[in-house]
Amino acid sequence: MKKVNVAVVGATGMVGRTFLKVLEERQFPIENVYFFSSKKSAGSTITFAGKNYVVEELTETAFDGKNIQIALFSAGGATSEKFAPIAASKGIIVVDNSAQWRMDPDVPLIVPEVNPEAIKEIKKGIIANPNCSTIQAMVPLKPLYEKYGLKRIVFSTYQAVSGSGVRGVKDLEDGIAGKPNQFYPHPIAFNCLPHIDVFMDNGYTKEEMKMINETKKIFNDDSIKVTATTVRVPVRGAHSESINVEFNKPFELEDVVEAIKNTEGVVLVDNPAKDEYPLAVDAEGHDEVFVGRIRRDFSVDNGINLWVVADNIRKGAATNAVQIAELLVKNDLV
Amino acid sequence: MKKVNVAVVGATGMVGRTFLKVLEERQFPIENVYFFSSKKSAGSTITFAGKNYVVEELTETAFDGKNIQIALFSAGGATSEKFAPIAASKGIIVVDNSAQWRMDPDVPLIVPEVNPEAIKEIKKGIIANPNCSTIQAMVPLKPLYEKYGLKRIVFSTYQAVSGSGVRGVKDLEDGIAGKPNQFYPHPIAFNCLPHIDVFMDNGYTKEEMKMINETKKIFNDDSIKVTATTVRVPVRGAHSESINVEFNKPFELEDVVEAIKNTEGVVLVDNPAKDEYPLAVDAEGHDEVFVGRIRRDFSVDNGINLWVVADNIRKGAATNAVQIAELLVKNDLV
Repeated sequence: MKKVNVAVVGATGMVGRTFLKVLEERQFPIENVYFFSSKKSAGSTITFAGKNYVVEELTETAFDGKNIQIALFSAGGATSEKFAPIAASKGIIVVDNSAQWRMDPDVPLIVPEVNPEAIKEIKKGIIANPNCSTIQAMVPLKPLYEKYGLKRIVFSTYQAVSGSGVRGVKDLEDGIAGKPNQFYPHPIAFNCLPHIDVFMDNGYTKEEMKMINETKKIFNDDSIKVTATTVRVPVRGAHSESINVEFNKPFELEDVVEAIKNTEGVVLVDNPAKDEYPLAVDAEGHDEVFVGRIRRDFSVDNGINLWVVADNIRKGAATNAVQIAELLVKNDLV
Repeated sequence: MKKVNVAVVGATGMVGRTFLKVLEERQFPIENVYFFSSKKSAGSTITFAGKNYVVEELTETAFDGKNIQIALFSAGGATSEKFAPIAASKGIIVVDNSAQWRMDPDVPLIVPEVNPEAIKEIKKGIIANPNCSTIQAMVPLKPLYEKYGLKRIVFSTYQAVSGSGVRGVKDLEDGIAGKPNQFYPHPIAFNCLPHIDVFMDNGYTKEEMKMINETKKIFNDDSIKVTATTVRVPVRGAHSESINVEFNKPFELEDVVEAIKNTEGVVLVDNPAKDEYPLAVDAEGHDEVFVGRIRRDFSVDNGINLWVVADNIRKGAATNAVQIAELLVKNDLV
């Protein structure tokens, strides 16, 4: 496979560090790699594939003279807003993990198992990585969308503190040790916070609106009705989701289970008789989406309930972004 | 108010001990009180209202000669199955906290703020206390049922380990300390278990079926469609619930909020601008049901989402049972 020059922007954050692991594990075809961060973390050393690299400060000229083809960004919305267009203007394709560009009609929003064809619609040199809680839900819903159509989805999430980066993990650890929370507005230890990202005027959080809007964009279908309640729970890594789905068409439950089981990137864990169902502690550190508790919803004509768990830093962020980069290479787009 | 003779069966368990607190706090009109437990805990001493009592072993003749009028049972389904009819045969009215009698058509299932009129249907001397996760949901749904009718409800729960009694709390504490789980089939520390009570043939857990069936019985309306996913989370006390509701009729959101706010037993905590919403750590130790995050569900014609939190040992068990006992006294049924 052709080798490419890659930049990792936000290399020292939680997702950034996972980018490195995933690039190595998946043997992404790297020729040269460059690491960038804010001024604060610049100068630190990163070990990648057995070699040491010095992290460079991200500036407007930082990409120059390096012949970078793909930049994986995970440095927050403000950094993406400013630097993704700069990178793109230099011919670099940006895969951006922030929310900044996701709903831009000229920016593809991609889950590689779901809408890989969107890779062909790159218009401004930027591809967006969807929100973590959206990504993991899309993977098992894809085959069901194709077979039955998705009429309506009700999401209730159980999201890990790693989604807030090191600050979230520290708040949980501090809370368990009896120390006060510093990042979240309320204690997260022994508690559930129905509050992820900021509140919007309509009463929903931005996280909830991401799930609602990104689902429609990824399936390229505004007819899908979606609502969501997103909740932070005292779990370290991996988000769990209770998903209630109504299809447009009737179904046989065994066909639904079979379709999910055969979906790329999914591991079916669904044997209640043996107490087997997806669990956050089992999903942590893995790239797959774990699906179980699949059962008919008797309260509606064509509905099911399911329970979907994935590592939010891997499939929900770094792994999905690296998979998008792989699509770029495979499709000769870099 | 008339004073009555009360028995507490299962006095040494987590709910049993809370019965004592709630009876004291609410100044329940007690003449004499008797405490019963299994052989294992019999002989231990209980302090109630400043006096010491010896816990007696529950036997077939244990109630004799005491002129007991009300027995509060919280000793599990098997004990209730055997001893509630024995108590009833001696003229005692049993308020039972187990699942044993809840769906019996001759046994009223009561949330006093919701269906107090059911108290008049006592046919076999037994009244059932609903499941914890059901009780707290019913309280804010009552005014909405009356105003708009309930078409369909989708429950996703976030339930505390205290719902499993001392064994659940110990598993959480042990897990955090790095010790293995002894009660739950998987670790509960830093994890979410989509598994409460046993699995049924239809793929639902018994806990989920309780929410589905008890909702219809409490509202005395089989036309309400209900589905549920019930999940154990690493929270010590108080269950949280993400509730999605479809009404039969259109509504104004402000009317919904007003109706919930004015409901007996509800505390409205719904000010996202100030990061105010119901939280498990705030609800613990309180008798009220805390409701917030009330917002229109734009995915359906007449829907809302809301977030409901209550102490599962108090309103979800002991407090609700004592309120039922208060209804018995008020209605001169004992």
